[in-house]
Amino acid sequence: MIKVGIVGATGYTGVELLRLLATHPQARVTAVTSRKDAGTPVAAMFPSLRGHVDLAFSTPEDARLTECDMVFFATPNGIAMNEAAQLLAAGVRVIDLAADFRIRDQAEWEKWYGMTHGAPQLLEDAVYGLPEVNREAIRGARLVANPGCYPTAVQLGFLPLIEAGVIDAATLVADCKSGVSGAGRKAEVHALLAEAGDNFKAYGVAGHRHLPEIRQGLARAAGAPVGLTFVPHLTPMIRGIHATLYARLTQDTDLQALFESRYANERFVDVLPAGSHPETRSVRGANTCRIAVHRPQGGDTVVVLSVIDNLVKGAAGQAVQNMNLMFGCDEQAGLAQVPLLP
Amino acid sequence: MIKVGIVGATGYTGVELLRLLATHPQARVTAVTSRKDAGTPVAAMFPSLRGHVDLAFSTPEDARLTECDMVFFATPNGIAMNEAAQLLAAGVRVIDLAADFRIRDQAEWEKWYGMTHGAPQLLEDAVYGLPEVNREAIRGARLVANPGCYPTAVQLGFLPLIEAGVIDAATLVADCKSGVSGAGRKAEVHALLAEAGDNFKAYGVAGHRHLPEIRQGLARAAGAPVGLTFVPHLTPMIRGIHATLYARLTQDTDLQALFESRYANERFVDVLPAGSHPETRSVRGANTCRIAVHRPQGGDTVVVLSVIDNLVKGAAGQAVQNMNLMFGCDEQAGLAQVPLLP
Amino acid sequence: MIKVGIVGATGYTGVELLRLLATHPQARVTAVTSRKDAGTPVAAMFPSLRGHVDLAFSTPEDARLTECDMVFFATPNGIAMNEAAQLLAAGVRVIDLAADFRIRDQAEWEKWYGMTHGAPQLLEDAVYGLPEVNREAIRGARLVANPGCYPTAVQLGFLPLIEAGVIDAATLVADCKSGVSGAGRKAEVHALLAEAGDNFKAYGVAGHRHLPEIRQGLARAAGAPVGLTFVPHLTPMIRGIHATLYARLTQDTDLQALFESRYANERFVDVLPAGSHPETRSVRGANTCRIAVHRPQGGDTVVVLSVIDNLVKGAAGQAVQNMNLMFGCDEQAGLAQVPLLP
Amino acid sequence: MIKVGIVGATGYTGVELLRLLATHPQARVTAVTSRKDAGTPVAAMFPSLRGHVDLAFSTPEDARLTECDMVFFATPNGIAMNEAAQLLAAGVRVIDLAADFRIRDQAEWEKWYGMTHGAPQLLEDAVYGLPEVNREAIRGARLVANPGCYPTAVQLGFLPLIEAGVIDAATLVADCKSGVSGAGRKAEVHALLAEAGDNFKAYGVAGHRHLPEIRQGLARAAGAPVGLTFVPHLTPMIRGIHATLYARLTQDTDLQALFESRYANERFVDVLPAGSHPETRSVRGANTCRIAVHRPQGGDTVVVLSVIDNLVKGAAGQAVQNMNLMFGCDEQAGLAQVPLLP
Repeated sequence: MIKVGIVGATGYTGVELLRLLATHPQARVTAVTSRKDAGTPVAAMFPSLRGHVDLAFSTPEDARLTECDMVFFATPNGIAMNEAAQLLAAGVRVIDLAADFRIRDQAEWEKWYGMTHGAPQLLEDAVYGLPEVNREAIRGARLVANPGCYPTAVQLGFLPLIEAGVIDAATLVADCKSGVSGAGRKAEVHALLAEAGDNFKAYGVAGHRHLPEIRQGLARAAGAPVGLTFVPHLTPMIRGIHATLYARLTQDTDLQALFESRYANERFVDVLPAGSHPETRSVRGANTCRIAVHRPQGGDTVVVLSVIDNLVKGAAGQAVQNMNLMFGCDEQAGLAQVPLLP
Repeated sequence: MIKVGIVGATGYTGVELLRLLATHPQARVTAVTSRKDAGTPVAAMFPSLRGHVDLAFSTPEDARLTECDMVFFATPNGIAMNEAAQLLAAGVRVIDLAADFRIRDQAEWEKWYGMTHGAPQLLEDAVYGLPEVNREAIRGARLVANPGCYPTAVQLGFLPLIEAGVIDAATLVADCKSGVSGAGRKAEVHALLAEAGDNFKAYGVAGHRHLPEIRQGLARAAGAPVGLTFVPHLTPMIRGIHATLYARLTQDTDLQALFESRYANERFVDVLPAGSHPETRSVRGANTCRIAVHRPQGGDTVVVLSVIDNLVKGAAGQAVQNMNLMFGCDEQAGLAQVPLLP
Repeated sequence: MIKVGIVGATGYTGVELLRLLATHPQARVTAVTSRKDAGTPVAAMFPSLRGHVDLAFSTPEDARLTECDMVFFATPNGIAMNEAAQLLAAGVRVIDLAADFRIRDQAEWEKWYGMTHGAPQLLEDAVYGLPEVNREAIRGARLVANPGCYPTAVQLGFLPLIEAGVIDAATLVADCKSGVSGAGRKAEVHALLAEAGDNFKAYGVAGHRHLPEIRQGLARAAGAPVGLTFVPHLTPMIRGIHATLYARLTQDTDLQALFESRYANERFVDVLPAGSHPETRSVRGANTCRIAVHRPQGGDTVVVLSVIDNLVKGAAGQAVQNMNLMFGCDEQAGLAQVPLLP
Repeated sequence: MIKVGIVGATGYTGVELLRLLATHPQARVTAVTSRKDAGTPVAAMFPSLRGHVDLAFSTPEDARLTECDMVFFATPNGIAMNEAAQLLAAGVRVIDLAADFRIRDQAEWEKWYGMTHGAPQLLEDAVYGLPEVNREAIRGARLVANPGCYPTAVQLGFLPLIEAGVIDAATLVADCKSGVSGAGRKAEVHALLAEAGDNFKAYGVAGHRHLPEIRQGLARAAGAPVGLTFVPHLTPMIRGIHATLYARLTQDTDLQALFESRYANERFVDVLPAGSHPETRSVRGANTCRIAVHRPQGGDTVVVLSVIDNLVKGAAGQAVQNMNLMFGCDEQAGLAQVPLLP
């Protein structure tokens, strides 16, 4: 049994980790921290977990996280970077679901996140936790930077094209739409149902923090910098990301075969039949990315449609997938959920 | 392994049966019928099931349902009554998720459902599949009438009070609210997102088909006819029923203790702490009924709040629970889903 | 031209006043206060008002409200009671959209609102602004207490029955459902789209602040105290209240005729044909209450369905209606909006 | 008074015409046809219109449309082309809200709409009703082809750039998102709340009927064919279109000034301040297009955000605007609605 601790489990990625780990055959959550809510039973805050989670929140001091095998940080940016080193020194493996270790270039990170990095010495060792790219490195990792939600959907959609060198990587467009749970469980006016319901808008067009993360991942695959326009939008639903990706083809190729071949052995990436339009609800609650590839009117623009559940393959599910790799479990352990439809 | 057939699996209760049975350790779906869609892979119609269900729809003829151990009818009213007898004669056990066998009084059934009953000889043997009331009878049943969604939420909420004889059973009020999946996967204008979204309305105030079913169940518990006003409403969400129940207390009693005691051994009924307000999302995707009981301002009106997922405890989940009882499985087999929140 | 000031126009009732008054032929908003946002153009915060409202928010000091003819308080509870006296002394008429002057009994108000009343001397003069009951008094009023949203829907539904003396006023039930804009434009976790979306729940069953207001209004009509169980619910939509009202008939009567007669001359109350089920969207954006009355199965329980837009007839629209009465305008001035459907 | 007839007013564009025309000072609807619902009062089908519309649906024969001054076709594609000639011959002006006269090239139209055109002789005279491009021609038109919803949002967004010749018109991308009312008031499974709610998907990537319409309009502005990739999506809301447009800049220019200048005299196009993100709700119920233009990270990709209400500026509102032009009314007559927010 893997002894698991979760730091900051009062947000959506935290409660989703608890949902997934409640069914994991080889892991047991032994500590859930929240300084503010210490003493409160987890199931009192999240009644959906009644009967599934018996723990109460505890202070970080009482949680004795150094006795865990694995600690997840489901915290805001800037927390894990100050607390990971001590855990790693104690032999604990760490997965950060926030952004602290996602960008290898410290200056770039500090520019986008607006703070000084607290543990630059760990950046080199941190492994970017996208199993479809880094599986072997993740197996041996002590510290994993769990990818952002948009970066997961966008990279999985662009990677086959970039790796095969069949598109112009200087003029990529990623038009992305997210449900509101991506904004977290924070009291903010713009995310009220009365504001975000029955409404659609773009945000962050001038520059979103996931842009450098996506560029870094695609550049690694391309072996050179890429040019990317990334526009995120807020759509009035709870879960789900839909990435619509545009690129210019530089050579003719069988796109359907290319995608099917790239993901033939990936259990969590599902390439749909030619002509399909994946729906976000088809992955609701599950750790799956479904992808379709189109070439409208046979022109030289390729359009990729990529959907994930932002809280699962875009956060907690991918984190569990990474834990499974780090501890030698079946990669699907705890991730057998069938999507909830309707 | 229980060999399972599903008749009419292109609706929401059918696809939900498939979702739940996909994780059942002792059951395997071997036939899924749909005359219209015969030959189509189930997962082509419901991409959420890709990777979980490999079957194609087949015609009833090809399905060889008599070779199954268990057949679920997820069909409109009026189908199972004409097909069940043949299956029962072949030794197959049958659960009807529609209303054909729910009302014991043939004339009453024919009045509310507007057709002649096709198998009145089966009405006496059919067991009403509410395990919290009829567990032993279900264990031995050959034919189970799976309860309606409203009747499940309303009966579980009223039963402790009626069984204890502490309310006036002649003046009951059940004000119920349902998500739109309760209307089924049928092309109807009133259920369009553009019609039912951002909108709230009552319907069927003059008389809804679930009224006689609820009255029958409560009368059985009361040992006498009951008086019930039942008003269903449509609320702009996908899954979930919230029943708000009103009754007049005829004697003082510890309501919280009464409810906790009544359901102490029920794994799928969760009595919340005093003062709680259950939310429908706290049972989304799970076979649980959560209940809270209130006595506003200490007056003589008792208010019970009861929530279920209409497609799970209100339909497919309860059907699996009944199957588990009929075949001696653990009552929770295939029903371990943690509710999806948010 | 009536010179209008609005105090606290950054919430939903404030922006709704601005929407309605933008089309009012005899009123002109000259001051909109918000200490926090002073200097910000109103249309910068609410882009829907671009091209319709040219004002900027100003501090209360700069707003020179005493030069207005009419001041609306669209503020939280407890503000108007401390500021109204000075305006009234300057000859300004005042309508409070909050609760400060709704309850005539000071002790009762202080119990439910948890604060000491700042202007008890004004309670006697304040007129309760439900025109269908108090039209003449409103015409002569200096200070109007605009009714709450639930109290408007519930009173309009019960009044014909109570005034006619045909029901038992000791056992009333009001089961009410509200869209989330009723909670205001406040940053609160429970009102996030990710929390309140696709979800249904009751709240405040132990006692909601609108209970004493409704009881006061119904008692006045009955000439005696009434017994009322009031259960509010939150439904996942933006605007709208649906009140489902239950009462026991004490004498036979033509309910449809009773309602039609009571509201024959009311331009903002629409009694639907017998058998109807009013939808909240049928009044979206308009100052209308639509009502249907039912007697299920011909029994002795009467069911009234009453819908309003909580921000219009339940708040800003009713306030404009009151202003029209106070200034001798056509009661419909500024209130000609056709409901937005779909 | 302009005597107005509406053919096929049981759909969303029809009921929206009725809502807008109910407040028009110079037009009066005298006939509303629906063969299926002849005799039914309009307000019985659409209770939102109670008190605003007193007409009943009539058969086309009884409607005496040739006595109207103006007839709107709010019908499916393929109806107006067979009925317009007779009306035009009688001196009636005609606006078709469907697609029959939008494409000048008959063969192109027949290819995309899959039928033989019934009145090719009218194609040359029909004026494309986008006032911001064709105002003078519309004033003199007898027959107006009202633009599609996507084409309105996309053309208004791209036109300033194309007319100024500052982008590469061969590599345009239009990523568009629509609320579900765009699919019409038709009973279809995919548009049910239980299907389209809490879900996001693309559709028609291989080729949508609005593609040739947009290309035709942009080509006219460019003076040469354009290359366009157009991907529509369905978003879980009722009204609204959000177009996110991407183009490659071929010369440096002050984009904000370009847009402000282009639309300086347009009362229904609102260019937002630099850095803005227009929301669909900011135009809900109003005949306004709000636009923002961005140049992310100062690169050579321009991103235009354009929002409309698909039923108003994208359909019925634009039709009324066209009628106003054709009859010499103030262009804003009947179009003074303030958007409904929240």
